[in-house]
Amino acid sequence: MTPPHQKHFHTSNPEEATAINRSLPEFAAAQTTDEDEYFANHQPPTYLPEIEEEVRGFVAFHQQTTGKRLALVTSGGTTVPLENNTVRFIDNFSAGTRGATSAEYFLENGYAVIFLHREFSLLPYSRHFSHSTNCFLDYMTERDNKIEIDPKYSAEMLKVYRKYNEAQDSNSLLLIPYTTVNQYLYTLKTISEALKIYQNKAVFYLAAAVSDFFIPQSRMPQHKIQSSATTDGELVIRLAAVPKFLSRLVDNWSLGAMIISFKLETDNNLLIKKAKSALERYHHQLVIGNLLQTRKKEVVFVSPGREEWIRLSDEEIANGKEIESEMIPAVIKHHDDWIQASK
Amino acid sequence: MTPPHQKHFHTSNPEEATAINRSLPEFAAAQTTDEDEYFANHQPPTYLPEIEEEVRGFVAFHQQTTGKRLALVTSGGTTVPLENNTVRFIDNFSAGTRGATSAEYFLENGYAVIFLHREFSLLPYSRHFSHSTNCFLDYMTERDNKIEIDPKYSAEMLKVYRKYNEAQDSNSLLLIPYTTVNQYLYTLKTISEALKIYQNKAVFYLAAAVSDFFIPQSRMPQHKIQSSATTDGELVIRLAAVPKFLSRLVDNWSLGAMIISFKLETDNNLLIKKAKSALERYHHQLVIGNLLQTRKKEVVFVSPGREEWIRLSDEEIANGKEIESEMIPAVIKHHDDWIQASK
Repeated sequence: MTPPHQKHFHTSNPEEATAINRSLPEFAAAQTTDEDEYFANHQPPTYLPEIEEEVRGFVAFHQQTTGKRLALVTSGGTTVPLENNTVRFIDNFSAGTRGATSAEYFLENGYAVIFLHREFSLLPYSRHFSHSTNCFLDYMTERDNKIEIDPKYSAEMLKVYRKYNEAQDSNSLLLIPYTTVNQYLYTLKTISEALKIYQNKAVFYLAAAVSDFFIPQSRMPQHKIQSSATTDGELVIRLAAVPKFLSRLVDNWSLGAMIISFKLETDNNLLIKKAKSALERYHHQLVIGNLLQTRKKEVVFVSPGREEWIRLSDEEIANGKEIESEMIPAVIKHHDDWIQASK
Repeated sequence: MTPPHQKHFHTSNPEEATAINRSLPEFAAAQTTDEDEYFANHQPPTYLPEIEEEVRGFVAFHQQTTGKRLALVTSGGTTVPLENNTVRFIDNFSAGTRGATSAEYFLENGYAVIFLHREFSLLPYSRHFSHSTNCFLDYMTERDNKIEIDPKYSAEMLKVYRKYNEAQDSNSLLLIPYTTVNQYLYTLKTISEALKIYQNKAVFYLAAAVSDFFIPQSRMPQHKIQSSATTDGELVIRLAAVPKFLSRLVDNWSLGAMIISFKLETDNNLLIKKAKSALERYHHQLVIGNLLQTRKKEVVFVSPGREEWIRLSDEEIANGKEIESEMIPAVIKHHDDWIQASK
């Protein structure tokens, strides 16, 4: 049963994954650190033109009609195929909670949102009910030979449903999926260029967990790796560094937009240091740092010369308060300042 | 909003993942091929006793009350953490379609089913609606300030909902989740031992895509791998072979049950050869071979001295016929023969 509104880019379809890197030497530029060379040597996803058209239409609509500010929210992990016919891949831990939740608060604060997300990761609004044991059958009940929402849940569902519909009806939320790191990078570049006309009214909220490493095509077997083909039962995987795209994003792809990157660490001692060095390296506006273990309780905003912590009390967490409800208004203050400063 | 019936083993919770392998030298037995040594050197998931209790209760209920045959269906990929605080992991490609669909046909053919699945992979019944762009919000509509199922979908949903409820009410479907390969192996062993009392009326339908390789704890960094920590931007991952558990499953864990393993390949020339060698190696009853590219159109049953192909025509596929609707009755014939032969 195909649901309505469902996009069919098949980003996680193995044939598509193969199509992406079958013919061209996709990863030939493995050793290079030059982002341009990456794109020169890597094949774009076959569906990219469709996405570009959708995004350009969405951006033009809001520029001409609503005048809303626009947030590009990236969310979820990226995959790195280990084989050309993708059976195995390396993934990053991310359900997409940060991105999906943040997107809702951007929308509630009057922004239009392009949600560039890992396919099947959490989505705004449906996140409240998805990733449950049985998706939604557990929320249903039968009465008089008709299926309906269990009254226990209908009130809260209606609330979420209305917000979701409001976002749909006002054409304020555009969902764009990806699966592999190559799909992510190409789509990010395409969206960024489509956003240039939005200048400083656009904010890039880069919450996706992007792989730092990938497998060069030249080293990738066509078929599933056979255990027997390995020496003394061992398998050695050599990964090359994914070129850093943030500098190119800041310098070329975007035009005056405010750019926010995320640092997810597990070692408290590294967090601030790495957030600051990212800021120095890429000259963008804001790094949001968080630890895997405490990311739902506290985050730190690191901007030039400033460190702001946002923390929830145990009581607030117990009451179901989401830290994004404080993060996004704080982000928007930074965006206000950025727009002022760039006048 | 926590859904009802939801199990909370948190198998994909990073803290739990850490808990599993924090203290003991979980992967110390990396080099060994002895399955027993694996368990001697690896820590079980903390929630395993809960699962054992649930499974033993389920098995006893059907042995004493319904007398149904019982199928253990494993489904979905397993993960291999690359770090102790799991940010990155190696995954196998599997949405769990084969397992979730097969489980439904086992249930429709009168079997009780233990569904050992990768958390958040597709589930029986909900699979018809989940993994859609917006889970179920797209199937809803509002009328008179009440949320209800869009009439366009309610008829088909009711059909699925009734089957789902029938499985619930008759206590015929037990959902057991896992995430990592270690969780999978421990849970499989526990379930197998609980199934011994079922003898030849149990069938093991091992459709999960289990990792062949894993990272020994001794080589696993405590924290997120830092790009800077790698030589010339490269990251080298050395994986050890996961011991083959099928022989131990056949010889020790199970007692007279019929055991079916799967071979997923991408190279047509290897499929039959590898299916046969698995059969010779493990002395079990049936290997179901399929190619990643055509797995929804054709499969091959390889049993001692026999090869049976099951194929769907393009027309059947166009009409929405699922190959599992032919696979499971064929499996059940094999199970009949097995029960006869072992009398």
